[in-house]
Amino acid sequence: MASPLAFTGSPLDRADNVRADPEALAGMMSWRARLLMLDGLMPSIGDDGRLTWGSLADAPENAELVFLGLDEGKPCFAAVPDRGDAKPRMANPQLWNLMQVLEPGDLATYGGARSIVDWHARHRHCANCGGTTHIAKGGWQRDCKSCGTQHFPRTDPVTIMLVEHDDRLLLGRGLGWPERVYSALAGFVEPGESIEEGVAREVLEETGVAVRDVSYIASQPWPFPSQLMIGCHSHADNDAITLDTSELADARWFTRAEIAAVMAGDTDAPINTPLRQAIASHLLKWWLEK
Amino acid sequence: MASPLAFTGSPLDRADNVRADPEALAGMMSWRARLLMLDGLMPSIGDDGRLTWGSLADAPENAELVFLGLDEGKPCFAAVPDRGDAKPRMANPQLWNLMQVLEPGDLATYGGARSIVDWHARHRHCANCGGTTHIAKGGWQRDCKSCGTQHFPRTDPVTIMLVEHDDRLLLGRGLGWPERVYSALAGFVEPGESIEEGVAREVLEETGVAVRDVSYIASQPWPFPSQLMIGCHSHADNDAITLDTSELADARWFTRAEIAAVMAGDTDAPINTPLRQAIASHLLKWWLEK
Repeated sequence: MASPLAFTGSPLDRADNVRADPEALAGMMSWRARLLMLDGLMPSIGDDGRLTWGSLADAPENAELVFLGLDEGKPCFAAVPDRGDAKPRMANPQLWNLMQVLEPGDLATYGGARSIVDWHARHRHCANCGGTTHIAKGGWQRDCKSCGTQHFPRTDPVTIMLVEHDDRLLLGRGLGWPERVYSALAGFVEPGESIEEGVAREVLEETGVAVRDVSYIASQPWPFPSQLMIGCHSHADNDAITLDTSELADARWFTRAEIAAVMAGDTDAPINTPLRQAIASHLLKWWLEK
Repeated sequence: MASPLAFTGSPLDRADNVRADPEALAGMMSWRARLLMLDGLMPSIGDDGRLTWGSLADAPENAELVFLGLDEGKPCFAAVPDRGDAKPRMANPQLWNLMQVLEPGDLATYGGARSIVDWHARHRHCANCGGTTHIAKGGWQRDCKSCGTQHFPRTDPVTIMLVEHDDRLLLGRGLGWPERVYSALAGFVEPGESIEEGVAREVLEETGVAVRDVSYIASQPWPFPSQLMIGCHSHADNDAITLDTSELADARWFTRAEIAAVMAGDTDAPINTPLRQAIASHLLKWWLEK
């Protein structure tokens, strides 16, 4: 298997037993505690290329603090910023750059912290009654004092899949994507379906291709804002494409030689390499090696 | 592989292209449309043991309607009830009974419908600003007219895992569970972790057992309220248990012979069979057969 997926492998021990114990949690909020330095949702990167950590004194007054976990015994926190990501999406060159420069453990720590502080910033009210919610359990819950509803951070499962037919793979180009950018099809798992059903539905909706024998390959947290990417492989019996033009600009079958050229970064490759840190790249590598 | 998992295999075509097309959606709301008959969140079961369907005229005036999809071309809807499930959990004998009596397709249709109408009933306000939200896209979105935030139904990924050591399996008994009830350990995937990391963290937290070589087995939607159960297998190098008594009443290793007796329903089995419809049962069967 290839190297670990980006955003996995955080060195933090989440120490969940601390969250539900107000005394233990209060004890963590000491001079020893470290605060992840953020500017909005973006990290502050030091001259050494690493995440920057301050102390709790660096948090804005009255800021809500999330207990991220322990790093070699040291309590780590992040402060909830004023605003979350209003239109959570990935079209941010700063973020792409971050993924290139941060070392894997830092990237994972940042990704997890970003997802949860962004969730808090966008969930200051109760979806049930509209009342104000308050941070609870070290930031792993919000409580509504008006109606008593408890709210928990979201993690949204998304299937992303290779579709194989006759030693070729089906890749798609999203609406508004640059011309040479193709990637694996993907879509949110909906209430009432399994991962396997979600894969089959999404491929059929977007391209009209029916798939069978869905198998799981790997998963990856993707903090824009809080996806759990679930990478799968599937087989198609037929290669006729009926494009859903409300979802995709194009979908095409690529030969093994073409995929190999893409992943090798050949100048005559028909499309661009997917972002190295994205699970799509991992899935294509997996397919070439299998 | 064993029979399909409960709550999968709905016969409905979700017809997602209809959701985003107001004209097509309006066209679905005709005399031909069927309304899933619910009493709160519970289904109405006919004398034939099947789900009962009425027409849109049976919906309460001003009820929000969710477009579930097409059943042999017929548009199917469900109305959002006044209240959702305030404390979503499974300790409801009526629900257990339902799972025994409904045929698989009906159970899947009901499960998917229940998850989404329950979500609507508990999300009538905007988590961002507290304003009132309105149903959109045939019930697959809610919009806040005050701040413009779009909200989407939740699907919460939960890992549930076999832990194997020396041909034995680790099972746990939750707090407040009856004495003979043990099942596979389980826990929500948190922001910032992969499925594999979630499995390892959860087992370590609850039992102190370190696992490796996590592999995916199967998944199942579980509509109480909207879990996506992700069934995995893992290996432990060590069988020493340190119980987290805030999470579990007990955890024990069971031999292959004991698990076989449990699944055969032997009267001298050490514990009870898990609910046949739950993925835990599927995982145990998979392990005995592998």
